[in-house]
Amino acid sequence: MSPGPPLPVAGFTAGVFTRNVVQAAPVTWTRKIAAAGTCRAIVANSGNANACTGPQGEADAAETAALVGAALEVPASQVAVASTGVIGQPLPMPKLRQGVPRVATALRADGWTLAAEAIRTTDTVAKHRSARGQVGAVPVTVTGIAKGSGMIHPDMATMLAFLATDAPVGAADLQLALTAAVERTFNRITVDGCTSTNDCVLLMAGGGAGGPVLTPAEPGWAVFTGLVHEVCDALAAAIVADGEGATKQVTFTVTGLPTEAEAVAVARAVAASPLVKTALYGADPNWGRILAAAGQAGVDFDPARAALHIGDQALLKDGRHLGAEAEAAAAGVMAARAYGVTLALGDGPGTASVRTCDLSYDYIRINADYRT
Amino acid sequence: MSPGPPLPVAGFTAGVFTRNVVQAAPVTWTRKIAAAGTCRAIVANSGNANACTGPQGEADAAETAALVGAALEVPASQVAVASTGVIGQPLPMPKLRQGVPRVATALRADGWTLAAEAIRTTDTVAKHRSARGQVGAVPVTVTGIAKGSGMIHPDMATMLAFLATDAPVGAADLQLALTAAVERTFNRITVDGCTSTNDCVLLMAGGGAGGPVLTPAEPGWAVFTGLVHEVCDALAAAIVADGEGATKQVTFTVTGLPTEAEAVAVARAVAASPLVKTALYGADPNWGRILAAAGQAGVDFDPARAALHIGDQALLKDGRHLGAEAEAAAAGVMAARAYGVTLALGDGPGTASVRTCDLSYDYIRINADYRT
Repeated sequence: MSPGPPLPVAGFTAGVFTRNVVQAAPVTWTRKIAAAGTCRAIVANSGNANACTGPQGEADAAETAALVGAALEVPASQVAVASTGVIGQPLPMPKLRQGVPRVATALRADGWTLAAEAIRTTDTVAKHRSARGQVGAVPVTVTGIAKGSGMIHPDMATMLAFLATDAPVGAADLQLALTAAVERTFNRITVDGCTSTNDCVLLMAGGGAGGPVLTPAEPGWAVFTGLVHEVCDALAAAIVADGEGATKQVTFTVTGLPTEAEAVAVARAVAASPLVKTALYGADPNWGRILAAAGQAGVDFDPARAALHIGDQALLKDGRHLGAEAEAAAAGVMAARAYGVTLALGDGPGTASVRTCDLSYDYIRINADYRT
Repeated sequence: MSPGPPLPVAGFTAGVFTRNVVQAAPVTWTRKIAAAGTCRAIVANSGNANACTGPQGEADAAETAALVGAALEVPASQVAVASTGVIGQPLPMPKLRQGVPRVATALRADGWTLAAEAIRTTDTVAKHRSARGQVGAVPVTVTGIAKGSGMIHPDMATMLAFLATDAPVGAADLQLALTAAVERTFNRITVDGCTSTNDCVLLMAGGGAGGPVLTPAEPGWAVFTGLVHEVCDALAAAIVADGEGATKQVTFTVTGLPTEAEAVAVARAVAASPLVKTALYGADPNWGRILAAAGQAGVDFDPARAALHIGDQALLKDGRHLGAEAEAAAAGVMAARAYGVTLALGDGPGTASVRTCDLSYDYIRINADYRT
């Protein structure tokens, strides 16, 4: 739901969208709005993705925007639409025609957590986060909500997330800030390697904080982008923690490669491997699967130089196993719900972290039963 | 185990190996032998992959070859070594020193099925296949065995398979025949998207059938390569049918794209998607997930032209759903253990099929418990 009239949204908006070739009607609609850079409201529904719904889907997305526009007295062309849920079924427009006007009257500035509840599908918890900082003399807030639990994979901004800030930032600079934050947060998580037809992250800037317009040239820019990163990172972590069937949250960090891009590729390959993820579920320090998954990334490295830590526990050094005692200690670390794994592959400067969860029986249960 | 002295193996051998950066010691050893083109025996063990075992692993692979060489009176440099099983533990050499001489005395020409039994790990059935054909006046046989159940993904010849033929074929031409067959068989299956450190497919040509040396210029070449393809294809299908935890075998065929390479990419993306594979397990004709997975392949197509069949049942036409009756009929097809799914994306000549299995609770059970 829109943060609505009580929040002074001037309407500059940036967006990042799925790169899946198959894109839902609301993504097509909202992409245009983000490109134009001005948005006054966001309307989101769960339960139905309005994807693979053809011309009827496009018409339904447009009508939804028009309903919101009429209710809030803003142009429909400035209303972003987002949908999440089952693919391939028509949006239940009678419900939306009834519901949108009712929801519009219920808008309030502190409604973020209710909106975070409303966009859940298989999510088990609502996901919201705020960050505050000082830009020069002006206190600035960035607030965001997200939904996502399955169909989560890096490189696609894979889920819905809506952020807003009262910082005075123009549309182009807002896009810079959002793209940079998404690249290192939402694009560095994976649940199941599947990318969605409906992914969409929006950041709206209202300017209500006051002060001069913020640009990358200002000293306060780093503070602002830090806040955007903080909120995106917290929401991304919340999505992984709530991954379908997840019992573990694990951050894989790869160090020592020539470039960050190579480190990202290796960390993603490890974080996405079903064999690694089932070992996480079994709390099995199966370093062989981790190395084998790393070797699948298409990045050259020397396994004989590999060092692996599970939490603080060293398990491999110079490519060699450190013995049964180290392995037992590593298994102890893996009993925790959340921990980090570090794979050092050389002495280059390229480092990256990717968050993932384990692959459990419940992922199968949730997805074998999701529709039927 | 080697097909052994009773089979007149002249020793020309072709090999295809994992492209994983992390390669097991036996792969390093056997790659050299296949490159040299002459091989007199293959020794394989299950239970231990001899991967990530450093210099000790290299020495153990070499010693294993030497043990076989001594037992069969062939040069160790002509003995291929293959291992499969747990990564990162030293080969139990005392067992091999005891076992190899004993196994060598038990070799017999009809021992293929016993060898297929011996190389199983999580495989629930042994996998073997023979094909016979007529090359000119000469009857020719191609026989093969394989192991593989998890860590199976296209593009890597992902498992162990050993083939032999009595056709008289030189090493270079043998490599041509094997590479072509692997590309369209073992490289078009997936179980879990994970590639192994130990993948290896070997084809030995003994020449015992007699007749003139076969080359690609001979009219009999197509017959011979057809036999190699038939055996590889049957073994690849057997691996998917025996995929860890699998209850379904499904062949995804993509048609109508400009090139075969694009069709392969889309078919692989669909066949590897955990969300598609859990839907197969649930016998849910979830065409939205199939389209979404297809859209993730990085191949451009127009979803509005997509047509989907499950078995013979049409489910989508021109990107639109054909209704509840079609869906119920498709769910009926999916109750079978094996069926095909065809996704038509245009009228181009590019077509490809990829075999996969479903993702079930048992995949989790097998892999959360595999080591510990």
